[in-house]
Amino acid sequence: MLFHGLSAFPITPADERGRVNIGELAGLVERLGTAGVDSVGLLGSTGSYMYLSRAERRRAIEAAVDCLRGETPLIVGVGALRTDDARTFAHDAQAAGADGLLLAPVSYTPLTDEEVFQHFAAVAAATDLPLCIYNNPGTTHFSFSNALLRRLADIARIVAVKYPALPSPDVKTLHGELQSTLPEGFAIGYSGDWNAAGAVLAGGVTWYSVVAGLLPEPALKLMRAAQAGDAAEVQRINGHFEPLWALFRELSSYRVVYAAANGMGLCRADPPRPMLPLPAGDQQRVMQAIAALDQV
Amino acid sequence: MLFHGLSAFPITPADERGRVNIGELAGLVERLGTAGVDSVGLLGSTGSYMYLSRAERRRAIEAAVDCLRGETPLIVGVGALRTDDARTFAHDAQAAGADGLLLAPVSYTPLTDEEVFQHFAAVAAATDLPLCIYNNPGTTHFSFSNALLRRLADIARIVAVKYPALPSPDVKTLHGELQSTLPEGFAIGYSGDWNAAGAVLAGGVTWYSVVAGLLPEPALKLMRAAQAGDAAEVQRINGHFEPLWALFRELSSYRVVYAAANGMGLCRADPPRPMLPLPAGDQQRVMQAIAALDQV
Repeated sequence: MLFHGLSAFPITPADERGRVNIGELAGLVERLGTAGVDSVGLLGSTGSYMYLSRAERRRAIEAAVDCLRGETPLIVGVGALRTDDARTFAHDAQAAGADGLLLAPVSYTPLTDEEVFQHFAAVAAATDLPLCIYNNPGTTHFSFSNALLRRLADIARIVAVKYPALPSPDVKTLHGELQSTLPEGFAIGYSGDWNAAGAVLAGGVTWYSVVAGLLPEPALKLMRAAQAGDAAEVQRINGHFEPLWALFRELSSYRVVYAAANGMGLCRADPPRPMLPLPAGDQQRVMQAIAALDQV
Repeated sequence: MLFHGLSAFPITPADERGRVNIGELAGLVERLGTAGVDSVGLLGSTGSYMYLSRAERRRAIEAAVDCLRGETPLIVGVGALRTDDARTFAHDAQAAGADGLLLAPVSYTPLTDEEVFQHFAAVAAATDLPLCIYNNPGTTHFSFSNALLRRLADIARIVAVKYPALPSPDVKTLHGELQSTLPEGFAIGYSGDWNAAGAVLAGGVTWYSVVAGLLPEPALKLMRAAQAGDAAEVQRINGHFEPLWALFRELSSYRVVYAAANGMGLCRADPPRPMLPLPAGDQQRVMQAIAALDQV
């Protein structure tokens, strides 16, 4: 059940040279364990994995393992442009105590289906850990066909997919297609916070959540309502989230959670350049949207 | 005149761990200098720059500088996901003896115009070398607006742009727009080998060429015809290139020139995984297309 439930993806606070601030990261991860999320998703896109060196990724994983003490499962993003690097990162994650891996087909040269298949097979074979396919065309610029997902699902350790959710009601069709494509028991989960609860209502078993990495309590309320099939409660809670979702769509969830984590006093860390911190006016809007969550 | 004429982009032969084969690289670069290309474009997309470490990039530059002995100008790609890394690579390139820099706005998290502007300003300030804007949305997933190009052109060291050529006659409109956007003397050049000679006929001053990195002689004939405004000769020569252009479009120029360099006995090096070498049947087609160039 590793890839089930609410998976919370924190940012990875680091200095301007990319050195992770372990104290701040530990504070963020500790909040997630305490709140009772179902897993922590370290070094996801929100966790800036593509902008961190091998040594810093490893330091971050070790800090998270220390924080969570095996009480909350730890999923670690191990994507890299090179297959050998992704294998190394996977190996490091297992050695440091991760419970599962998340792998995106990061690209510079556009990749063919066969190249992505071989890449995933090689990384899956690098450890004994279960692996989740990270489908995020907005950052990787690779789109999985159903045929490729099906081939990948036949690899023993590949047991889950993280898919960008569509708005309701289209997500029902999407989920039905994925279910008929993938073997029974394959964990179909969703990202894209503003559509994710709807995707869980439609049958998704996981919400891979940016907001839960910062605000686990209201995210848990939304997820539990969705898991219970309570569409009215989902709608009520999503209403409180809507100002934040609007900012996620406008400014990107990545930039918004950096601003929020700083505004909430949980860290003092900017995104890695070239990404810029939000201007002061947008930071204010972020903090107003977060204030609206007090009523969830 | 650094960013004018035929700029030839060789592959960077490396082993499966990403260690550059200096002997093979030197052989490729030597051919270019001997043939008389106007510049060598090292560590472009064709040169796998995003898949090579800092140390290997530096080794490659030093080898090329040794080969070219200052007789042919050397342009070096210095793109990176992190601004500080791109600055470091630029500094390394200057220290190793490069004559100019090529910078693409490589992204994982999608970038805003302001982020790209600040990134280019920071890298341009890292050395004394002139810099060419590398516009390649197919790999970077960032599209430059004319307004952003104009802002960048006001930075003192940014003097050129490498733009993906459109087919004729649309490239005339594109070139006219770029000319009216950019200051006089700003070097507007083109990539996309199968459309590049047409872009030079339309007024472009540079062909940033994949094929010239491997087959400089026929590429020089095509470029000199285009520079002379000889549309009939361009058409004749492009006819001989057409089987190769068709394979570039179908299989990507990157994979094709790797296959060709191996087939011609110039190296024994595969692209970095996850990219795969072409299957044997496609390799044969590549060698047939190259044989057609004997008649140029």
